[in-house]
Amino acid sequence: MYDVYYVSGSTAILAEDMGRALLAQFPGIRFREEKIPFVHTPSDAQRALAHILKQSEGMQPLVFCTLMDQETRNIFNCPEIRFFDIFLSTLELLEQSLEIPARREPGYSRHFTISRMDKRVDAIHFSLEHDDGTKPDDYDEAEIILIGVSRSGKTPVSIYLATHMELKAANFPLTSDHLDKDELPKEIVRNRKKVVGLVCSPRYLHTIREKRYTGSTYASLANCTKELQQAKQLYMRHSIKILNVEGRSIEEIAVQATQAIGLTRKGKQKARSRTRLVV
Amino acid sequence: MYDVYYVSGSTAILAEDMGRALLAQFPGIRFREEKIPFVHTPSDAQRALAHILKQSEGMQPLVFCTLMDQETRNIFNCPEIRFFDIFLSTLELLEQSLEIPARREPGYSRHFTISRMDKRVDAIHFSLEHDDGTKPDDYDEAEIILIGVSRSGKTPVSIYLATHMELKAANFPLTSDHLDKDELPKEIVRNRKKVVGLVCSPRYLHTIREKRYTGSTYASLANCTKELQQAKQLYMRHSIKILNVEGRSIEEIAVQATQAIGLTRKGKQKARSRTRLVV
Repeated sequence: MYDVYYVSGSTAILAEDMGRALLAQFPGIRFREEKIPFVHTPSDAQRALAHILKQSEGMQPLVFCTLMDQETRNIFNCPEIRFFDIFLSTLELLEQSLEIPARREPGYSRHFTISRMDKRVDAIHFSLEHDDGTKPDDYDEAEIILIGVSRSGKTPVSIYLATHMELKAANFPLTSDHLDKDELPKEIVRNRKKVVGLVCSPRYLHTIREKRYTGSTYASLANCTKELQQAKQLYMRHSIKILNVEGRSIEEIAVQATQAIGLTRKGKQKARSRTRLVV
Repeated sequence: MYDVYYVSGSTAILAEDMGRALLAQFPGIRFREEKIPFVHTPSDAQRALAHILKQSEGMQPLVFCTLMDQETRNIFNCPEIRFFDIFLSTLELLEQSLEIPARREPGYSRHFTISRMDKRVDAIHFSLEHDDGTKPDDYDEAEIILIGVSRSGKTPVSIYLATHMELKAANFPLTSDHLDKDELPKEIVRNRKKVVGLVCSPRYLHTIREKRYTGSTYASLANCTKELQQAKQLYMRHSIKILNVEGRSIEEIAVQATQAIGLTRKGKQKARSRTRLVV
């Protein structure tokens, strides 16, 4: 059992994401995690280190860090911990390649410009207001529209698209109403280039639905098979991109959905224009 | 103007997050970004490289990568690009420190166990269903409850807490009804240890409200001042933790809110138990 700490001059979210990704390469290792965010000064660092050592009981804990200030970082130069700077080595290579010195100031990570933050807040509100088929009249404004039968995972993916990718994501459930009529709402047809139709195997859907509605016709394998077939026919007739969500994480579905409709390439960005501190 | 690519064996989200954080250390550099996710084989890598070179027009693009497979990664050993492996150097240091070889398989990043993914989906649904004061009867089930006057930024933070930290987050707006009565709903008082009261300066709130409701009494500086004072009094009377959100990003508010009520330390984890591929 290892104690693992994520230490940062800002939120420690990136340190945590990187640390977890690295630790996942060591299967079977058990660990206990703690974020230590907002370490701004050497004395903050001393307090953090004292806290870490107090809990370590002689076991060398792992410390993943994204601290920028050398004096603050040096505090962790201590034989009782295993210290990993996950940022600096690549930063130095970048400096060499770009032939420009890095700013080396904390908290400028993720370079959320104010306009990008505003876009994200707007995207989150849009996605909340257009969850589960609400207000299809606004679909011309949406950047991506997920459609699929009930319980195919539309909502979490929409929310992720908004919070992590700043996309105005709507989602629309294909109920038996649409499926039996074999028709999509005109707002969806009109925006079909932004639409991704989610599918999975009947058995997968059946298992998910059974959890909540055990033994119902709705959850039955026969009904799941029928609904998915009807949905696929609708997608194909309208040339809607199809995405299989089975066994995939929210992140994977989100990225594949944006790929499906050609949203992966972003426009010009400036590394810092009215930057706010984030990570 | 640099072309920047994020290349990964899975979603490329971590490569993008790291790349952006690194690039943000070079203020003023302009760049155009593209994710190239799901690069699984050497031939995927060859296609990706051809795509990159075709667009580069002789300008050496920056390529940030989290590829694990050496043969696939070697494809990018090419003088026409600037290649940055953001994962490998730290991984090797970890191997030395832990004295265990890393699995070096792609897509095991973030080690979302199935139970953690389920928890996240539940958290997202909970947060959607408990946005903006809905269903306070369920607050005993919430892990964190944000309260504050209207337009103090509760909703995006709740959603972020659910999607990124798997927390069942509710939020409750303090309307003039509660403020004038000088009373909090009993569900909030009962759960006050999980409650964070958001504040900001009257001028900041005034500016935000003016954007939508220009010239209204609601948006007036006098009304904003009054509401914020009343809210603070309520927080203090009930020993509710207070968090200033002014000028902060969603991530920062989310992390500080969890700190305020002591949610930063996580329990035991296993690096891989029924792991799903994610990054």
